[in-house]
Amino acid sequence: MIEENIKPDDLVLICHRDRKYLKKVDISSTFNGKGGNIIFSELVGKPFGKLYGEYEIYKPTLEDIIMLGIKRDTQIIYPKDAAYICFKLNITSGSNVLELGTGSGAMTLLFSAIAGVDGKVITVEKEERHFKNAKRNIEKFSIFPNVEMINCDIFDYKGPGFKSVFIDVREPWHYLGHIIELTKPSASLGMIVPTTNQVTEILKAFETHKSFGNIEICEIMLRKYKTISERLRPFDRMVAHTGYLIFARRIET
Amino acid sequence: MIEENIKPDDLVLICHRDRKYLKKVDISSTFNGKGGNIIFSELVGKPFGKLYGEYEIYKPTLEDIIMLGIKRDTQIIYPKDAAYICFKLNITSGSNVLELGTGSGAMTLLFSAIAGVDGKVITVEKEERHFKNAKRNIEKFSIFPNVEMINCDIFDYKGPGFKSVFIDVREPWHYLGHIIELTKPSASLGMIVPTTNQVTEILKAFETHKSFGNIEICEIMLRKYKTISERLRPFDRMVAHTGYLIFARRIET
Amino acid sequence: MIEENIKPDDLVLICHRDRKYLKKVDISSTFNGKGGNIIFSELVGKPFGKLYGEYEIYKPTLEDIIMLGIKRDTQIIYPKDAAYICFKLNITSGSNVLELGTGSGAMTLLFSAIAGVDGKVITVEKEERHFKNAKRNIEKFSIFPNVEMINCDIFDYKGPGFKSVFIDVREPWHYLGHIIELTKPSASLGMIVPTTNQVTEILKAFETHKSFGNIEICEIMLRKYKTISERLRPFDRMVAHTGYLIFARRIET
Amino acid sequence: MIEENIKPDDLVLICHRDRKYLKKVDISSTFNGKGGNIIFSELVGKPFGKLYGEYEIYKPTLEDIIMLGIKRDTQIIYPKDAAYICFKLNITSGSNVLELGTGSGAMTLLFSAIAGVDGKVITVEKEERHFKNAKRNIEKFSIFPNVEMINCDIFDYKGPGFKSVFIDVREPWHYLGHIIELTKPSASLGMIVPTTNQVTEILKAFETHKSFGNIEICEIMLRKYKTISERLRPFDRMVAHTGYLIFARRIET
Repeated sequence: MIEENIKPDDLVLICHRDRKYLKKVDISSTFNGKGGNIIFSELVGKPFGKLYGEYEIYKPTLEDIIMLGIKRDTQIIYPKDAAYICFKLNITSGSNVLELGTGSGAMTLLFSAIAGVDGKVITVEKEERHFKNAKRNIEKFSIFPNVEMINCDIFDYKGPGFKSVFIDVREPWHYLGHIIELTKPSASLGMIVPTTNQVTEILKAFETHKSFGNIEICEIMLRKYKTISERLRPFDRMVAHTGYLIFARRIET
Repeated sequence: MIEENIKPDDLVLICHRDRKYLKKVDISSTFNGKGGNIIFSELVGKPFGKLYGEYEIYKPTLEDIIMLGIKRDTQIIYPKDAAYICFKLNITSGSNVLELGTGSGAMTLLFSAIAGVDGKVITVEKEERHFKNAKRNIEKFSIFPNVEMINCDIFDYKGPGFKSVFIDVREPWHYLGHIIELTKPSASLGMIVPTTNQVTEILKAFETHKSFGNIEICEIMLRKYKTISERLRPFDRMVAHTGYLIFARRIET
Repeated sequence: MIEENIKPDDLVLICHRDRKYLKKVDISSTFNGKGGNIIFSELVGKPFGKLYGEYEIYKPTLEDIIMLGIKRDTQIIYPKDAAYICFKLNITSGSNVLELGTGSGAMTLLFSAIAGVDGKVITVEKEERHFKNAKRNIEKFSIFPNVEMINCDIFDYKGPGFKSVFIDVREPWHYLGHIIELTKPSASLGMIVPTTNQVTEILKAFETHKSFGNIEICEIMLRKYKTISERLRPFDRMVAHTGYLIFARRIET
Repeated sequence: MIEENIKPDDLVLICHRDRKYLKKVDISSTFNGKGGNIIFSELVGKPFGKLYGEYEIYKPTLEDIIMLGIKRDTQIIYPKDAAYICFKLNITSGSNVLELGTGSGAMTLLFSAIAGVDGKVITVEKEERHFKNAKRNIEKFSIFPNVEMINCDIFDYKGPGFKSVFIDVREPWHYLGHIIELTKPSASLGMIVPTTNQVTEILKAFETHKSFGNIEICEIMLRKYKTISERLRPFDRMVAHTGYLIFARRIET
């Protein structure tokens, strides 16, 4: 399959020991790193997944794009959390997903990649600065043309009955009543917040609204190991905290 | 949308406090639990996402089906690991996925749900007992007709060049050479093993084969919290270990 | 050293696979467990640290006494937390320690064992039921006669200037002002509480009182591994949460 | 008590936000940090536990000395591990402790502080460089004159029957036979190693020697929280791994 070989302007993932770089194959340019230089024009026509001197050259995955490609002006959601959120929200090929708070668009890209051509992602962002940045990210990196971006206050969005909703804003508890309007009964709702105080506020709001059941709160810790067979051990340091994940389902009384 | 209401023989998720049940709506029968009885015929025509006495009745998600629906005759892969594996293997709508070791078919169902109508999952299982059990699970629960099940020794499967491979067998290191045959350069490979001794063996095999780069080893810990707003705290006990996840990418020298 | 051999009425730790028992050598009796019977009179005169059939017989450590010996009518503080608390409170041989909330006396025994003959532990408990139970535990198990037990409201205790204070009550924030009276500047203060809401209350009280500095909050997770050399892996389940530890030091403005 | 006030040449702990410094009160000198200058002569006669401008000045605890005071030429054992080791080895006031592998002397200082005037710590170090460094640390910081330092190969040390032994060397499994000679039955043995491969080797040695029972392997994770009441959350990053702790007890067949 000829399209699998590297073409000019393709994105490539360049790995050197513990370092990774996401770069565009600019045939008039070179990459200069600790493993020496890469003359990009020499990559053209070669397959992805090949050594180039000390470097490994791969076709970027969605993870590479989210972690290295998108421009961020908000806190990132880490893959360990992002993947679990998709699962808990029951997002599959063909899903319609509502995202409240686009942020930098990283979750949007993941929702879009799973939902596919038969699915749809509607994402709402109030802040024009975030909206514009996310728009660039999504236009640049989305695989499927299934994302609809809306630049308005969450309360002003009046969409149809969603089954999967993810909300990533500072005070998600204010929006529970509105989320009830936007979802079908039985819908799956997900949130992420960094502090225990916020979790307490959300739980209070659930107790007030009585329209959400099956509430789950968790945190996910990812511990990486060094890869030397004779000295297997975790890395010395790790990310200790990203956020508390909160899941619930819409219930009618 | 009338199809959203509960019909006879639909699966329903029944929640009562911390307990969950996945049941078929058998209109000639009842469910008897700690929250009283459910007369299934009374559910028909009602929407999903509704209270029934002390019970919450939801439309099952893929998580509910994997955790409660499928019949297991092998060790389960937990959602925290399963979701991350999909992400690391770059599985999106439209993906072609190879699974070596079908087990009970839980991962197969997840791969299938994400790959969708335009994707494909080929899964190979040697043990006839596991194969038959997984076949029943997949026939019963898969959303998309995109799964091809093969009952043969992994070494006898000679498929085309995959980009995403998951292998879940006791001694995955024996199959690295064969996996090289089954994949394109740049392909993503994932594994899960329960012991550090196995991780060491896999790392040794990677060191020997020199055809895999970007090796990552990790473990994921999920900690759940109690959901009372005034007494926020983790549950007393948690799952401490499921397995070590190993990821790598195919590289040609 | 003849005193090292087992005498009638000595305590012994009996281990059988994953199970442990703390028993008194009652020479007119036997122990009946899954590894068969132990005729206690046969242990007399034998050294500690010896096999008896399938059982291992050891001299109990302080851990064995705290985990198996003391009678509890309150939540236990786990060794992982208890040991760290002693360290953070700078308790060494010769220390004078103040404990507010005796509970079952487990921490008291540990403070006492470290403080030794030249040190002192003063422990205050309001509830008569807890006080009496702790008194029995301490009379039975303490190594050194350095514990003074006081049965009164914490506010009624007016002791001298302590350098190490541990408080284990439900609402420790109420006592900060009183603790200032009981301690010298530079004293180390420790607490343990189960919920994040309590931690928040304590932090608010610190912010109000302005008499404590160097505040630290942490939690300690202990993960145990199975001990088979060829299948090294963590146990499937673990204790996920005991409490949040809070440490601070008295500071004068 | 006049001795509690700061004297010339005393050690003081200086805290400024998240930073800590252990300094000697050199009355001819000043400390210059991000919170401004401290003129040491101005501290003399003041009590410990006092604000000085933006700084908090405390009397150093053993933790401060171990973490900030001792000069290290080996890997440190973290407090979370050190405190638990003392507990598991049943070290109390009056204990006799054998340490094989002095390293920098941090554990030695902790053993010494708990054992007190009636106890004793014998510590053996082969490497002259480590021995000399540890000697300086112990002479400078030990509270009790109960440490005997020996500069010889572990195999050449022939001590009496210890009840508490800690060994911190790269290949502790080589010394199990020798440890049997140095200990009484029922003695508690502790080790720390960084890799799973080492744990496997130790378990194999235990399986061979059959002179150790009640084997326990664990790891301790300490997660710190930020101390702002309205935004309670763990720090972003943490120490993910220090070592695997291994404990066992001597048993005679």
